[in-house]
Amino acid sequence: MIRVGIFGASGYTGIELLKILRRHPGVEVVFGTSESSGGQLLSDVYPTTDELPLILTEFAPLAKIDLAFLCLPHTAAMGTAKKLLTAGKRVIDLSADFRLKSPQEYKTWYAHDHLAPELLPDAVYGLVELHRNAIRKAELVANPGCYPTCAILGLYPLAKAGLLSDAPIIIDAKSGVSGAGRKPTMTTSFVEANENLSPYNIGHAHRHVPEMEQELASAAGKAHKVIFAPHLVPINQGMLATMYVQPNETMDTNALVGLYRQTYEAEPFVKVLGPGKLASMRYVVGNNQCVISLTAVNGTSIIVSAIDNLIKGASGQAVQNLNVMCGFDETTGLV
Amino acid sequence: MIRVGIFGASGYTGIELLKILRRHPGVEVVFGTSESSGGQLLSDVYPTTDELPLILTEFAPLAKIDLAFLCLPHTAAMGTAKKLLTAGKRVIDLSADFRLKSPQEYKTWYAHDHLAPELLPDAVYGLVELHRNAIRKAELVANPGCYPTCAILGLYPLAKAGLLSDAPIIIDAKSGVSGAGRKPTMTTSFVEANENLSPYNIGHAHRHVPEMEQELASAAGKAHKVIFAPHLVPINQGMLATMYVQPNETMDTNALVGLYRQTYEAEPFVKVLGPGKLASMRYVVGNNQCVISLTAVNGTSIIVSAIDNLIKGASGQAVQNLNVMCGFDETTGLV
Amino acid sequence: MIRVGIFGASGYTGIELLKILRRHPGVEVVFGTSESSGGQLLSDVYPTTDELPLILTEFAPLAKIDLAFLCLPHTAAMGTAKKLLTAGKRVIDLSADFRLKSPQEYKTWYAHDHLAPELLPDAVYGLVELHRNAIRKAELVANPGCYPTCAILGLYPLAKAGLLSDAPIIIDAKSGVSGAGRKPTMTTSFVEANENLSPYNIGHAHRHVPEMEQELASAAGKAHKVIFAPHLVPINQGMLATMYVQPNETMDTNALVGLYRQTYEAEPFVKVLGPGKLASMRYVVGNNQCVISLTAVNGTSIIVSAIDNLIKGASGQAVQNLNVMCGFDETTGLV
Amino acid sequence: MIRVGIFGASGYTGIELLKILRRHPGVEVVFGTSESSGGQLLSDVYPTTDELPLILTEFAPLAKIDLAFLCLPHTAAMGTAKKLLTAGKRVIDLSADFRLKSPQEYKTWYAHDHLAPELLPDAVYGLVELHRNAIRKAELVANPGCYPTCAILGLYPLAKAGLLSDAPIIIDAKSGVSGAGRKPTMTTSFVEANENLSPYNIGHAHRHVPEMEQELASAAGKAHKVIFAPHLVPINQGMLATMYVQPNETMDTNALVGLYRQTYEAEPFVKVLGPGKLASMRYVVGNNQCVISLTAVNGTSIIVSAIDNLIKGASGQAVQNLNVMCGFDETTGLV
Repeated sequence: MIRVGIFGASGYTGIELLKILRRHPGVEVVFGTSESSGGQLLSDVYPTTDELPLILTEFAPLAKIDLAFLCLPHTAAMGTAKKLLTAGKRVIDLSADFRLKSPQEYKTWYAHDHLAPELLPDAVYGLVELHRNAIRKAELVANPGCYPTCAILGLYPLAKAGLLSDAPIIIDAKSGVSGAGRKPTMTTSFVEANENLSPYNIGHAHRHVPEMEQELASAAGKAHKVIFAPHLVPINQGMLATMYVQPNETMDTNALVGLYRQTYEAEPFVKVLGPGKLASMRYVVGNNQCVISLTAVNGTSIIVSAIDNLIKGASGQAVQNLNVMCGFDETTGLV
Repeated sequence: MIRVGIFGASGYTGIELLKILRRHPGVEVVFGTSESSGGQLLSDVYPTTDELPLILTEFAPLAKIDLAFLCLPHTAAMGTAKKLLTAGKRVIDLSADFRLKSPQEYKTWYAHDHLAPELLPDAVYGLVELHRNAIRKAELVANPGCYPTCAILGLYPLAKAGLLSDAPIIIDAKSGVSGAGRKPTMTTSFVEANENLSPYNIGHAHRHVPEMEQELASAAGKAHKVIFAPHLVPINQGMLATMYVQPNETMDTNALVGLYRQTYEAEPFVKVLGPGKLASMRYVVGNNQCVISLTAVNGTSIIVSAIDNLIKGASGQAVQNLNVMCGFDETTGLV
Repeated sequence: MIRVGIFGASGYTGIELLKILRRHPGVEVVFGTSESSGGQLLSDVYPTTDELPLILTEFAPLAKIDLAFLCLPHTAAMGTAKKLLTAGKRVIDLSADFRLKSPQEYKTWYAHDHLAPELLPDAVYGLVELHRNAIRKAELVANPGCYPTCAILGLYPLAKAGLLSDAPIIIDAKSGVSGAGRKPTMTTSFVEANENLSPYNIGHAHRHVPEMEQELASAAGKAHKVIFAPHLVPINQGMLATMYVQPNETMDTNALVGLYRQTYEAEPFVKVLGPGKLASMRYVVGNNQCVISLTAVNGTSIIVSAIDNLIKGASGQAVQNLNVMCGFDETTGLV
Repeated sequence: MIRVGIFGASGYTGIELLKILRRHPGVEVVFGTSESSGGQLLSDVYPTTDELPLILTEFAPLAKIDLAFLCLPHTAAMGTAKKLLTAGKRVIDLSADFRLKSPQEYKTWYAHDHLAPELLPDAVYGLVELHRNAIRKAELVANPGCYPTCAILGLYPLAKAGLLSDAPIIIDAKSGVSGAGRKPTMTTSFVEANENLSPYNIGHAHRHVPEMEQELASAAGKAHKVIFAPHLVPINQGMLATMYVQPNETMDTNALVGLYRQTYEAEPFVKVLGPGKLASMRYVVGNNQCVISLTAVNGTSIIVSAIDNLIKGASGQAVQNLNVMCGFDETTGLV
């Protein structure tokens, strides 16, 4: 039985993690922390979680756990991670703090010095499909962002095969509102978001851009620039990216499907649809799958990739990482 | 040309009022105030209102207007109303401050002393269908709450005809989220409200209860208790109340329809559906109508009443009041 | 291992049943039938169900199963049930065909002669919380309608305790759109249902009324009339009934909560909230719970009862029935 | 007073047209036809349109009108248009029948011979911003499709300035569900469309592609290929296209905004947002505006264009055409 603690248990990713771990036969949740609500029942903070009888703690009894999930804001996670690693605990960090290999890049995008740069070399980017072996023995796993998970899985087969040309890689992404977190804001209030669809941070401006470029460069062996346009859609959970690339070799739809199926054939959580079928959010809402469809037209490949932003894009993937780290079957608790 | 000022122009009722008044040929909007955003364009505060080129002001040049709309929070409106009336301006107050005739009731329900009790006797409850004559010459009109508008219009014909028995009057109401105002809260955030339906303040607890009881007593000539259960539904604008009463005379559906049509036959903004038809929100979203349907069954009368909470339930009704006060055709700007 | 067949596997209740049974360790789904789509993969009919690798069959190999779920339209289910029972199979019928004890009542409400009235005396109304013992050994279980499940569980403690007075029992219910089934209609099309809320079949007109009255009479030992007003709300799954009764004894909220908790204390799938908390759909969407809240006010008891219409209101409850019939732990596959 | 008839008055575009024309002081609606519902009140077919007291006719008294709007399905409109033109009536056709100049293209995309190819040379593509002068004196106006309206207005300034390079023009479009028409289908049923987002007909497959390519070629003086990916989003009305082009001259955001503002400076219904602002559906739902925002990044121009698919994308634009054809101020009835 792996004993885990959840730091920041009352946000959307914390709650989703608790829901998943309830069904995991090899994990015991020892505590969940909440800075603002220590001492309260989770169900006092999040009224409809009576079935999760967790008392939130302000202070975390590190001695009692083997592994910690950090559902903390970026910049807050790095310090906690350091303390946990020093105490010999393994860490899965759902924040952005250990995703970028370069502390300079971190500072550029997050406007904050990195406080534990010495941990970056050994931190593993927790996209299991790309880094399974490194994750197995990692002490610190940086759970990927939702947009990068969706986009990278959709581009990786082309990148790895060296088929990405120098033409811009266009990623038009659509996300449900839970991706913005649980804190009430004007943008995510019902009347503003409902019956609306709005792009934001488009171009090369969103903090998930450097994650995507880092992993594509690593897979392709050369740098690629992405054009990224995220859109907010009036849906609770779900994310879909429609991507447009010009491969440097002519490929028809069948060839694309073949390449993707070959790349992902052993993956339990990536599904490549056949020619003529298109991925939609419906396939993935509520599960840990990434569903991908492929369409070639006039030299452009259109890749549609869909995930549940809270599951494969956050808490489900975190459990997938735990399974790999701890030697469980990779799908435990996730089907 | 009537010159008006809007106090509190950047909330949902203020915006809706501006949209309606743009089409009103007899009204000029001289200013809109905003405590927090004085000096800014309305479109800076509410990005999609470029078509409403209003500069928000912190201070209001009273001399320039004939009439003021108060879209201020309750307790804040009373002071402003007093100042305006002293300066000889007519006032339509969209807050709750002058709706209850009794300052004691006000204190009971709003937990605050009434600061201008001397104005209450001459304030007119601005439900045009009940108080048209008094509104014509009123200096201070208390624009009704959204729930009371919907419920009272649905019960008034029975009350006035003396047909309400002593059995409890049950009002099961459903409101779109804009009824809760524009300030972001957990309850009204997208992910919490969407795919959810939740009752709140049920029983005899909601602040709109005393308004309903006051107006029913006035129409019936005797006191009636209501049981009121509001529900939040994942819809932007719209409100529907399903009401259950036991009239003290047996009435079939045709008799009910007859009574209601007779009561409202001259009303431009109340529509009574025929037997077999049921009111739904769809009828009223975006317009100033109250649509009512009637069904008699086993001694119970089921009255369904629907309005747009922001229009007939707030800003449209305020313009209807202005039309009556200023001698315009009652439907000006509202069709 | 219990071998089951699903008749009518491609509607919403069939799909939900398949999703639940995938996680049930004691059940094997041998076949799913579809009159119109025999020979096709389920995922061809319902594109996003690739994870349910079921081939739909036109003809059902009865010999291979122990128990059948009927997700057929009413009137179509009775014949199939008869054939199955004759072949010695146990049956859980999700249609309305065996819910009413009286074939005359059936004819009145469903405008069709009952074709197997000889089976009615031994059919058990499958509301486990009321009829657990009879279900254990039943050959034919009539799975309750969604509205009756929600309403009866909310009224049963008062009925059983003899506390229901002769005042009308008012049931104002709100249902998500999946309750209307999967066949496209004007009423359930997106643009018509979205941003709308509409009552339908109100009064004493909906086919679920006689189910409610039958079970309340059985629990109370005397007949009670209900007033029933269902409303369609723009939500996929979820149902909430707000009920208004005048008990024939004065009860405050604490007394109500006490009575309900006592009645349901051993129930794994009924949760009674404490005073001051209100049930909402959010509690139950996606699970098999019925969550109930109670509020006493001026002699009226307001009972709010919420379920997921497709789970506790249909397929989840059907699996709960299977668990009771076959001796599994009642929660198997349902948590 | 222009007397008009509406052919096919009971679909979404017909209804929207009636709502707009009610406020048009220079137009009288003489009749609305409905093949299936002749002789009925519009409000019998579309229950919430009581305020539109129109009797649907099966046969159309041509003599009584000056101009006809055709809201008929493609292939059905061409015959009717021919008859009307022969009778000396002007025609605004909202179907696709006269949008493509080439009858061969028509046959390729609509799988049907064109039945009135002799009318094509004089039919005018009714995008007022591009063809205002020709529309003024046109007898037959082909009202553009919703996607082409949104996309062409967003690309026209670059095309006309000769700045479109040979790189693929990528149009990622998102449409509300009313774009699919009023007939109930599985795809547009509430439960299927809600909480989902799905691409369809992506690549070079949607029938609106040749319209876009025709108008871009006409503006640019040379052929351009588009890559078009439409997506269905759970919204009633609204459309937004995010477009990615590589201009053949380096342009920063300011230069783009300058070019667009210059092109559209006299247009009452096109609004170009300043640098840093992004178009969203919220700007245009319920009005006849096209709102465009521009972002330049690493050599790619990202153009976001938003319209209301039923208004600027259909019925509002049809009234705009009528205004131009009949010499009304272009905004009559539309603000």
